[in-house]
Formats: sequence, C-alpha cells, structure tokens
Amino acid sequence: MTEVQRLRDELRAFAEARDWDQFHSPKNLASALAVEAAELLEPFQWLTEEQSRSLEPAQAEAIRREMADVLIYLVRLADQVEVDLLAAARDKMAENAQKYPVEKARGSARKYSDF
Amino acid sequence: MTEVQRLRDELRAFAEARDWDQFHSPKNLASALAVEAAELLEPFQWLTEEQSRSLEPAQAEAIRREMADVLIYLVRLADQVEVDLLAAARDKMAENAQKYPVEKARGSARKYSDF
Amino acid sequence: MTEVQRLRDELRAFAEARDWDQFHSPKNLASALAVEAAELLEPFQWLTEEQSRSLEPAQAEAIRREMADVLIYLVRLADQVEVDLLAAARDKMAENAQKYPVEKARGSARKYSDF
Amino acid sequence: MTEVQRLRDELRAFAEARDWDQFHSPKNLASALAVEAAELLEPFQWLTEEQSRSLEPAQAEAIRREMADVLIYLVRLADQVEVDLLAAARDKMAENAQKYPVEKARGSARKYSDF
Repeated sequence: MTEVQRLRDELRAFAEARDWDQFHSPKNLASALAVEAAELLEPFQWLTEEQSRSLEPAQAEAIRREMADVLIYLVRLADQVEVDLLAAARDKMAENAQKYPVEKARGSARKYSDF
Repeated sequence: MTEVQRLRDELRAFAEARDWDQFHSPKNLASALAVEAAELLEPFQWLTEEQSRSLEPAQAEAIRREMADVLIYLVRLADQVEVDLLAAARDKMAENAQKYPVEKARGSARKYSDF
Repeated sequence: MTEVQRLRDELRAFAEARDWDQFHSPKNLASALAVEAAELLEPFQWLTEEQSRSLEPAQAEAIRREMADVLIYLVRLADQVEVDLLAAARDKMAENAQKYPVEKARGSARKYSDF
Repeated sequence: MTEVQRLRDELRAFAEARDWDQFHSPKNLASALAVEAAELLEPFQWLTEEQSRSLEPAQAEAIRREMADVLIYLVRLADQVEVDLLAAARDKMAENAQKYPVEKARGSARKYSDF
C-alpha cells in the first residue's frame, strides 16, 4: 500500500466516523478543492515572483497548511470518483512529453500553456 | 523513494529540460494550481450532487485529467517551496482529529468547515 | 457618469492615495479576483442547492460582503486594462443569444455551458 | 434604472426564456463565477507583472470576454440572492477607508490584504 492510498483510507475512515459522506459528493468536494486552492494562492497574490521564491517562515508555514488541505480534498475526491491519482498523473506526463517536445518548448512561455 | 517523490523528480527533470524554471515561481505555480482546480470544478457546476455521484464516462475521463493536472502542479509547487506534501497532510489530519471530535462533528455540516 | 464609473473613480483614488498602484498589476488583480470569487463560493460549498436558495441572515450578509469584493476587484482590473465592463457584457450577451437559441437551449443543462 | 439593473433584467429574461432557473441556484452560480474568475486568471498565469501591464491585442480581447462572464454571473447571482451590488460595494469601501487609513497603509503590501 502506497502513502497516497494510506492517506485515502484515513480520510475515508475520518469521514465515515463523522457521517460526512452525505456532504462529500464529488460536486461538493470539487468546490472545496477549488476554495482551498484559492486560499493557497492568497498569500502569494501581492508578492513579487522574486519574493515568492524566498518566503518568510510564517508565510511558508501558512502555505504548507493550505497545500495539505488541497492534497486532502484531492485524495478524498479521487476516492469518491474512483480515480488512481498517480496513474492519472503518469498518463498526463506521457501526453505532455508528446505535446511539449524539448526542442520546441525550450524557454518558451508562449508554447507553454500547462504541463 | 515513494511514488510522490518519483513524480516530483520527473516534473523537475521535465521543467529543467525545457528551461521552464523561470516561469515556475511559487507565485505562478499557485496561480496555475488554482486555475486547474477551477477547471476540475467546471464539469460539476451544473450537475446535481446526485448526478455528480454517477458520472458519465466522458465526464469521468475529463475529470480524471483535470485531477492529474491539479496533482502535477501541487507536487511541482511543493518541490519549489520545499514542502513534504504527505507529512503536511498527516500533520493536518492530526489537527483535524482534535478540531472535529467524532461525537461533536457527527453528521453536522454546521460544525464542519473543512478537514 | 454611471454608477460603475463612479465606483471605478473611487477605487482609483483610494489606491492612489495609498500608493497601491505598484501592487495592482493586472496579474495581481486577476489573482485577487479569483481568490475573492472562491471566498464567495466557500459559504455555499456544503449547502444543498435548496439551502442555497434560502440563506440564513448571517450567511446572506457574508455573501453580500464577498460579492462586494468581487465587484471591487473586477472594476479595479477593468480600469487597469481599460475595459468597459458593461459594454463587454452587452457584447457577450449578444453572442450568447446566437449561441443558445431559445428553442434549442430550453431546459437543457447539456447544451448549456455558460452564458 | 441603472445600467447594472438593466443587465440584471436582461439576464433574468434570458434565463427564463430558456428555463434555466432550475440550474441557476445560488450555489451553482457561485461555482460558475469562481470558474470564470479562474479562466480570467489563466491568461495572466505565466506573464510577468510587467507583461500584464501591456497586453497583446489577442490577450486583451480574451481577457475582456472573461471579464464579461464574471460580471454576468455576478449580476445573475446578485439577482438570485437579492443583493444590490453597488450598495454592497459602497458599504465595503466605507469599511475599507476605516481599515486602511492613508497614513498607515501608504505603500505597504504588508498592511494590505484586500480592499
């Protein structure tokens, strides 16, 4: 069992013990995930890119906590819709390698849209 | 080496080969993550909760791909800000167990704000 | 001068008095807008659609405040990128009337993607 | 009748003609708004702040369209939850004037969290 599967099982048990499955529809979890991702963006919004590369300890800690929330909701949603997250990421990486060949994508933000 | 560390290393190599580190400031990656999380929310926005629990194959596939993107940017951001995602999630789960004791949180969306 | 133009001028004066133009790049304002829109989504995330149609007073007040923030950043961003928001909305509505003819779009969430 | 009220009435008629009120619960509209705000962020995500201050025509046009969508969903949501957007923004501006007095907030991103 991998570490992500362990987290998935813990989250499942946590929700079941609290009878939260009724709230954890995929639709609601996708909303919660988007909200957490925005909370993670918030501490960066007025920083320059340079400042974002060397965060102060309090900022770094706040960001670490928001990243945890994003992972938690992502893993919980993946459980509900029966997606193997790591397999999905591997498939996407294989596509990206085709879509952004090194020689063409090199140093270009124009070619670049996302991974 | 865990599967998440393997993904982190692959993403790092992918970005380096394309000279994309210049675009991958934590600020920009946090934006990209928020954008992908919203793209994941999009297919759910007009569904009922019930419909979101039994997705059609095309929707399920689109959602799987967006989940991959969210994980990819989350892992890439974690690498840039030197966060151990799984350790952060474990810490957050320990806090949540304190914050939402079973007997109080049971079946309550009011108590419930996030994990 | 319309009410939106008045708000735009007030926001401009507010930012200038505080020397905030340096933070108010279009990129940063677009981030702030996305963050506020997610904060507006947050109070809805665990509600049923039915519950969202009859909000409690405290929820309604919180939502009113978040809507104000969204409008404020939207008007501020429009000022920075020199967009006439109402004209842009009118143009979009004309497109939507073409894209979603009444007889085809009637009652269909499938046809429906956005306005 | 102000221009925002006119837009509100047009959107209401548009939705009614298509029998879309069933999809336009406040919860769903808040999701759609968050999705559109993220789509507005997307074209900025890899730009520098400097680049975002002088957009290319194609980018500027894309951004104008996304801003229209954000306004449309905001006005539609305000209609459903019976919020007067401009009055809400005026109230928020009065609060902000108290919260960020000129002499303290001047040029400071630290004091600054939002409007």
